[in-house]
Amino acid sequence: MKTFICGFGTIGQSVAKILKEKQEFFLDRYGEPLVVVGALDSKSFTVNPDGLNADELLSTKKTTGMVGDKPYKNIKDALNAVDFDILIEVTSTDIYTGGVGLDNIRYALKNGKDVVTANKGPLALRYKELINLADEHGRYLLFEGTVGGAMPIINLNKYDLAGQQIKSIRGIFNGTCNYILTKMDDGQPFEQALREAQQQGYAEADPTSDVEGYDSACKVVILANSIFGRNATFNDVDITGITSINSDAVALAKANGMVIRLIGEVSATKLEVAPRLIPRGHPLSLPGTLNTAEIITEYAGPITVSGIGAGGPETASAILSDIIDIMDVRIGE
Amino acid sequence: MKTFICGFGTIGQSVAKILKEKQEFFLDRYGEPLVVVGALDSKSFTVNPDGLNADELLSTKKTTGMVGDKPYKNIKDALNAVDFDILIEVTSTDIYTGGVGLDNIRYALKNGKDVVTANKGPLALRYKELINLADEHGRYLLFEGTVGGAMPIINLNKYDLAGQQIKSIRGIFNGTCNYILTKMDDGQPFEQALREAQQQGYAEADPTSDVEGYDSACKVVILANSIFGRNATFNDVDITGITSINSDAVALAKANGMVIRLIGEVSATKLEVAPRLIPRGHPLSLPGTLNTAEIITEYAGPITVSGIGAGGPETASAILSDIIDIMDVRIGE
Repeated sequence: MKTFICGFGTIGQSVAKILKEKQEFFLDRYGEPLVVVGALDSKSFTVNPDGLNADELLSTKKTTGMVGDKPYKNIKDALNAVDFDILIEVTSTDIYTGGVGLDNIRYALKNGKDVVTANKGPLALRYKELINLADEHGRYLLFEGTVGGAMPIINLNKYDLAGQQIKSIRGIFNGTCNYILTKMDDGQPFEQALREAQQQGYAEADPTSDVEGYDSACKVVILANSIFGRNATFNDVDITGITSINSDAVALAKANGMVIRLIGEVSATKLEVAPRLIPRGHPLSLPGTLNTAEIITEYAGPITVSGIGAGGPETASAILSDIIDIMDVRIGE
Repeated sequence: MKTFICGFGTIGQSVAKILKEKQEFFLDRYGEPLVVVGALDSKSFTVNPDGLNADELLSTKKTTGMVGDKPYKNIKDALNAVDFDILIEVTSTDIYTGGVGLDNIRYALKNGKDVVTANKGPLALRYKELINLADEHGRYLLFEGTVGGAMPIINLNKYDLAGQQIKSIRGIFNGTCNYILTKMDDGQPFEQALREAQQQGYAEADPTSDVEGYDSACKVVILANSIFGRNATFNDVDITGITSINSDAVALAKANGMVIRLIGEVSATKLEVAPRLIPRGHPLSLPGTLNTAEIITEYAGPITVSGIGAGGPETASAILSDIIDIMDVRIGE
């Protein structure tokens, strides 16, 4: 099978690297390789119907800042330059408009390609439209990597908890906020904790999307639609960030055996991101940058899962599991 | 499809109840029901090729102490009394000999039945033999419920982490020990914590299998064989229980920001159950009766999962997910 890596930042580069490392696995499982026939970044693209060399892609990107030697006017032209089966959509996310990712996913599905993405924006804004489009064209649109990076949650619900009604999901979906709240729990004021998060590379120069809860809200919407069958968008989420939490509140929580955590909560009726008091010792009280989700199930009670919420290889690992899902069906195990 | 529930204690009863509640789900997903055509306990059995009524089974068991009105000399006679597709093997576990469960699984696989089990004994003692038997006869032997009850781990590795090498798994696989260690962390001596665990129904009158680490060892062996492709048995595990942990050790750990936990650890080379110091705030430091496993992956770093480690509905939920796996393949989604 043939794949096109659309977006060649941290995640796209990790995907290229991992797919190369997994060639033996693909040959062993499917009797055929998974070939990367195209790759593009914001400025350039490159294609080869016989397969691109991942090492070359990575070194070209490193030395020239571009993945390929061909410029493009329109991403569609690049996508049309070679025949492929699976689009890996990992352009940078735009949670306000969906960005180019939205166009790319639409275009690929309409043209009979399966799509695997880690791009939150399109799914937080146009979930129903995109899933319907995939269904209409008999294609898969898989997106484990959009929620919690390496933390398995979409597929956990689909496979491991199959047949069970999911009552609700509460979780920490933003490692940056959890890092800041952990530092505040250690006695730092918000501003200092934020600066430290920025120095550590956890928070961006403009931390709005993290600290205002917008990033968490995107993930909550994707869970609402994919697990609870809702038809929600980013604008339906009740959002409170962590910017108004002060040291007094954190100290008061601490004195009562609690911590403050930014919790996303979703059920058939709820869609919310807000700071919550969590008892120390509860799985959602854990410190640090991990993402954690507590899934309340029909029979199994609470199931908690946590993992690294961002990063190249971590997100690429979620993409790998989605690619395997598609190949299992398209080729057969 | 037709199933036979072999063992009608807490788990078998929960399976009967859940399969009844899920009839609509089965009809919807497969266009056909899953019918329970046989059930047996240690004293009696009952069969009906057209399907047994779960409510009747449960009330008969409650009022008479037996699930059926027919005695049997040999379980095989009961299993031969009706035609079925899937054996649900949930007789009580015997970790020293494998008990009747071992015979039942062998017999079912040899006779072309798929098997779903929550019975640790047979898999901890005869994993390779049973898996080979299943392969020879083109049958499934699935066992999510043997490790950690509701906590998804076998299927998590098979599906969500497909394609990734698993480097190691460390976990809390016995809720009773974790309860005792939690109480000791609160200042209770071992004997008092154990008595409390017995009063709460977490520990049995004879707590040997829990506190000596044997129960955890069974689970570690099953993970070693199923996830790391090893050919280990219960006797290969290096086991240290929690009976020699005293209040001084717990207090010393506490003074250093640590807790003591009974940790099972498995990798390509390791197979061990022993008390370990875990830093407070680490996912494996959580208090209470939950089971927790930390899976160190090739690309995703550590993934942690926790859930209720025992109990009827919880274990039955794992059995349900295995049944769905089998029906997905046998009938098609």
